[in-house]
Amino acid sequence: MGKTGQTIFLKNKPRIIGNYSLVGSKEGNGNFKRYFHKILDDDMQGEKSFEKSERQIAIQVVEGAIDDAGLKKSDVDLMLSGDLLNQIISSSFAARELKLQYLGLYGACSTMALTLGVGAVLVDGGYVNKVTCSTVSHFSSVERQYRYPLELGNQRPPTSQWTVTGSGCTILSDKGSDVCLTSGTIGKVVDFGILDANNMGAAMAPSAVSTLLSHFKKTKTKPADYDLIVTGDLGKLGSEILLDLMEKENCPLGENYNDCGQMIFSSSQRVYQGGSGAGCSASVLNAYIIPKLQSGELKKVLFCATGALLSPLSTQQGESIPGICHALTIEKEEN
Amino acid sequence: MGKTGQTIFLKNKPRIIGNYSLVGSKEGNGNFKRYFHKILDDDMQGEKSFEKSERQIAIQVVEGAIDDAGLKKSDVDLMLSGDLLNQIISSSFAARELKLQYLGLYGACSTMALTLGVGAVLVDGGYVNKVTCSTVSHFSSVERQYRYPLELGNQRPPTSQWTVTGSGCTILSDKGSDVCLTSGTIGKVVDFGILDANNMGAAMAPSAVSTLLSHFKKTKTKPADYDLIVTGDLGKLGSEILLDLMEKENCPLGENYNDCGQMIFSSSQRVYQGGSGAGCSASVLNAYIIPKLQSGELKKVLFCATGALLSPLSTQQGESIPGICHALTIEKEEN
Repeated sequence: MGKTGQTIFLKNKPRIIGNYSLVGSKEGNGNFKRYFHKILDDDMQGEKSFEKSERQIAIQVVEGAIDDAGLKKSDVDLMLSGDLLNQIISSSFAARELKLQYLGLYGACSTMALTLGVGAVLVDGGYVNKVTCSTVSHFSSVERQYRYPLELGNQRPPTSQWTVTGSGCTILSDKGSDVCLTSGTIGKVVDFGILDANNMGAAMAPSAVSTLLSHFKKTKTKPADYDLIVTGDLGKLGSEILLDLMEKENCPLGENYNDCGQMIFSSSQRVYQGGSGAGCSASVLNAYIIPKLQSGELKKVLFCATGALLSPLSTQQGESIPGICHALTIEKEEN
Repeated sequence: MGKTGQTIFLKNKPRIIGNYSLVGSKEGNGNFKRYFHKILDDDMQGEKSFEKSERQIAIQVVEGAIDDAGLKKSDVDLMLSGDLLNQIISSSFAARELKLQYLGLYGACSTMALTLGVGAVLVDGGYVNKVTCSTVSHFSSVERQYRYPLELGNQRPPTSQWTVTGSGCTILSDKGSDVCLTSGTIGKVVDFGILDANNMGAAMAPSAVSTLLSHFKKTKTKPADYDLIVTGDLGKLGSEILLDLMEKENCPLGENYNDCGQMIFSSSQRVYQGGSGAGCSASVLNAYIIPKLQSGELKKVLFCATGALLSPLSTQQGESIPGICHALTIEKEEN
């Protein structure tokens, strides 16, 4: 941005020194079964409401990442978090329990990239040393807020995605690891007029195109330069739309492209287009992608979390669904 | 934070190069009548819903500030915004219309300090050149979301505050003005167990104490070092609680303390404890405080926006109201 167009370059390469993922039982039976740090037996965790359980997940994932980094809570300078519930209460109430300085962000399902991106800038610029970047979603609290009460037993349309009960937290620091963030592109809001809250992949795909094209241009990279280009949760249909649109832009994504929503559930789990929710890309990033970077199996990843910036209220007032996508380059440094 | 405790020091002093305020007709009849840049005759502005009108305000205030700075929209690198509506739709949909890169933040009524603070870090670190920092609230959309439908004609309790229909936008840049941000303190979530959504001032005052004490300590300043210490919207009761609590902490605030919620309406306007809402501190900052810094009548201001991080859902589930406060030092540079 400014001098550099819309991409931010992180000269000091903020390091990933801790990561943690926590998912519900359905997600725990999916494709990343053996990667998640913790799988819940009971999505309610003995709490009285889905929302209170979601908050517990938001707390546990930050504590898990702090442990993973070998830190104490008092070592953390700032907690960056956001979620899908109205007024991001899961994050705010988690911050209350954790007693950390707190910066709340909202980017719907793009929130993991938003917290990581803002955290990376704060660390890169030397303003703070250690930040937690996290987000959470819970299938049951989201369904009843955005769509229908579960008790209604609504039939799910074939374009629908399954909101992930899950969460991820990444800890960034100025030193202490060879896995680092090197650049990021903050997206524009793009709206192609999709009106159906059960077709979010189609609503978000054009914003991913916009951000990907900017990111490639400003960083002077091409799709083949990345071992993995992964979108947040476009799902199967949204991913196909993205692949088509990128082809039309003469910037085809190759075999190295995938989508967290498409990856998280197995085909036998009957979730139609795949997973969605802020916790989808957050849990896959922290359970699978970051460890693969740590082990060296992946060297350079473009993590593009996508968000549908709708509200039940905007839908009721006849508005279409705006999408946004924020992209981050995560690399393993060469020795 | 980190090396510096929880306060961020802005070495390059991001400059305020544009500011704009826009309020509803009731606010326009209050104490800052002659300071607001624009006063609406009709809070609906011909739109079909309060929410659509709120979005128009969010758009107009950013455009107004861009004009004030003598810029074009294409000069702006990034729009930082948040608001009180579920999923911050006023901000997201405004960003869609404005076609700007967009970073969404949520801090309830503390949002003006949050967007300014994050924007200041992005400019200070050289990541972007020009950012818009804004927030908005609308009495009618907020009342029906957080409390009761207006049509119900509920009686307002004496501890209540009146949500401001209003908005403010500040443009930060790396150069171009002698009014600048020099430091900021991101707050912790503090909860003293207030359960009454009509008593937000009391809920937020303890968080202001926490942030003020940290800010004074880390910046090695005392209350008398500021020409004005101004909280967001504690209102009359909340401000009295803050003054009491600061006295008990042996850090009394003096005559230079005031509160935007207390200042915005005149005593004849029958709003009980005063104004509230994200647009309260945002409009007072941009209409009154920044111009007084520009003219030199104020030299050093501590702007402490406070937020109540509740949701109707958290209240319904029996939760108390957590508060947060973010503080920013805004100064006029000596020649």
